[in-house]
Amino acid sequence: MKIDHLVSQIHKKKSFLCIGLDTDLDKIPKHLLTEKDPIFSFNKEIIDATNQFCVAYKPNIAFYEAYGLKGWKSLEKTMDYLNSEHPNIFTIADAKRGDIGNTSTRYAKAFFETLNFDSITVAPYMGKDSIEPFLSFEDKHTILLALTSNEGAYDFQTKRIDGQELYKEVLEESKSYKNAERLMYVVGATKAVYLQDIRRIVPESFLLVPGVGAQGGNLQEVCKYGITKNIGLLVNSSRGILYASNNMDFAEAAAEKAKNIQREMEIELNKLE
Amino acid sequence: MKIDHLVSQIHKKKSFLCIGLDTDLDKIPKHLLTEKDPIFSFNKEIIDATNQFCVAYKPNIAFYEAYGLKGWKSLEKTMDYLNSEHPNIFTIADAKRGDIGNTSTRYAKAFFETLNFDSITVAPYMGKDSIEPFLSFEDKHTILLALTSNEGAYDFQTKRIDGQELYKEVLEESKSYKNAERLMYVVGATKAVYLQDIRRIVPESFLLVPGVGAQGGNLQEVCKYGITKNIGLLVNSSRGILYASNNMDFAEAAAEKAKNIQREMEIELNKLE
Repeated sequence: MKIDHLVSQIHKKKSFLCIGLDTDLDKIPKHLLTEKDPIFSFNKEIIDATNQFCVAYKPNIAFYEAYGLKGWKSLEKTMDYLNSEHPNIFTIADAKRGDIGNTSTRYAKAFFETLNFDSITVAPYMGKDSIEPFLSFEDKHTILLALTSNEGAYDFQTKRIDGQELYKEVLEESKSYKNAERLMYVVGATKAVYLQDIRRIVPESFLLVPGVGAQGGNLQEVCKYGITKNIGLLVNSSRGILYASNNMDFAEAAAEKAKNIQREMEIELNKLE
Repeated sequence: MKIDHLVSQIHKKKSFLCIGLDTDLDKIPKHLLTEKDPIFSFNKEIIDATNQFCVAYKPNIAFYEAYGLKGWKSLEKTMDYLNSEHPNIFTIADAKRGDIGNTSTRYAKAFFETLNFDSITVAPYMGKDSIEPFLSFEDKHTILLALTSNEGAYDFQTKRIDGQELYKEVLEESKSYKNAERLMYVVGATKAVYLQDIRRIVPESFLLVPGVGAQGGNLQEVCKYGITKNIGLLVNSSRGILYASNNMDFAEAAAEKAKNIQREMEIELNKLE
């Protein structure tokens, strides 16, 4: 998907919500467990109920891999469903991959071609030649981990390297990569004020912001420091929406939660006009 | 697998060779492509021909994921074959995963339980709470990326953070993690002299050393600086062995290459006595 198309969807839906499909058999409503493919059944109902309120879905690959072959089948079905029924929705493989050149190309093919995702999250530790292979795919996007929303983010990411924090060094360096215009960045919302500094380094790039809600981030703060004229934000919510109810009404409850967030986003978007 | 068992296998086989199963349909002998599962057929013949010369196999997960469901099936079959026919062989999922707590646990289950690997490679960027979930599995090992063998290793890993290189900070910090005795580290052989410094920080830990051969490392150098009284080394070779020939004799050619490396290793091991 081209960025322009994503931006136009944001304006159309008055939303920059991304819904994380962290589908967990231990948490989905019990009545779904008798279905042939409970993970897909759950995802399908969630997608049907929430797609009008969001512009992106983000399956967290670990949740599918944990179930082996069966999990991959559920992921494939989910992606086929999204790509055929909702081609205007941006899809993110939250895979946090990262490997050497030739191997990165394999991962890129797995997610961009075999599964037809629009984007993938990638870890920066192995440097430029582990990231550029992902960037060579046209109309596909690589979402580099910069500043994550977990406690361990303070272990290395915020430590100073050559005088500036490692995550800033990652942002800075990545701007010189080939096809850098296909980069986006993960920036945890638990640190909204950091967004000011981040915007100085990457004023235009899209940021994928996890952690609004469950992890304690605040939408107004994120917008205050992070929003650009092209919006430049995808704010993710996973558990808060998926598991709003674990009864028969789970899809409606999820839709209700998504709609509430969409409305907050609409207020923020209206401020720009 | 317990470390003691791995060490006893090294002594028994006079080898600390790990063979990387980076199985690529574009590179395997053409006559295998008509088989029902060419990837598994190739792996099985390679394993049958080389298992006496090595103590570990390391499937690079990207190569399997690139083929989607079919690839996962080949990986499952390969692991079932290794676990049933060669239970004394140490298995490494070269997956370079890394995610937040709850998600890391999912990845750990996928590889340690569903696929029954002995170990997995993990990236450190997200810090302690992304790594400790892997360490909670008994008799399983987490192989943390410290200093990789690619060019991009110089982008961040060797930069100074609080006065010392990032990869040393990673080594140092990780020693305080819960169940740190289950950690091993990836250290690229292209930088054998770095091993001296690394051994000062982690004098006993096992190091997985890629890059001997194809990537230009040298076995004698690696042993000189890296070997410990418990050996503490697994040296990996992938393409040099797998693709020694792409004719009908590929398995014998692979065995010949593996045997040559094993003999060099035997010489190094004899020096210790």
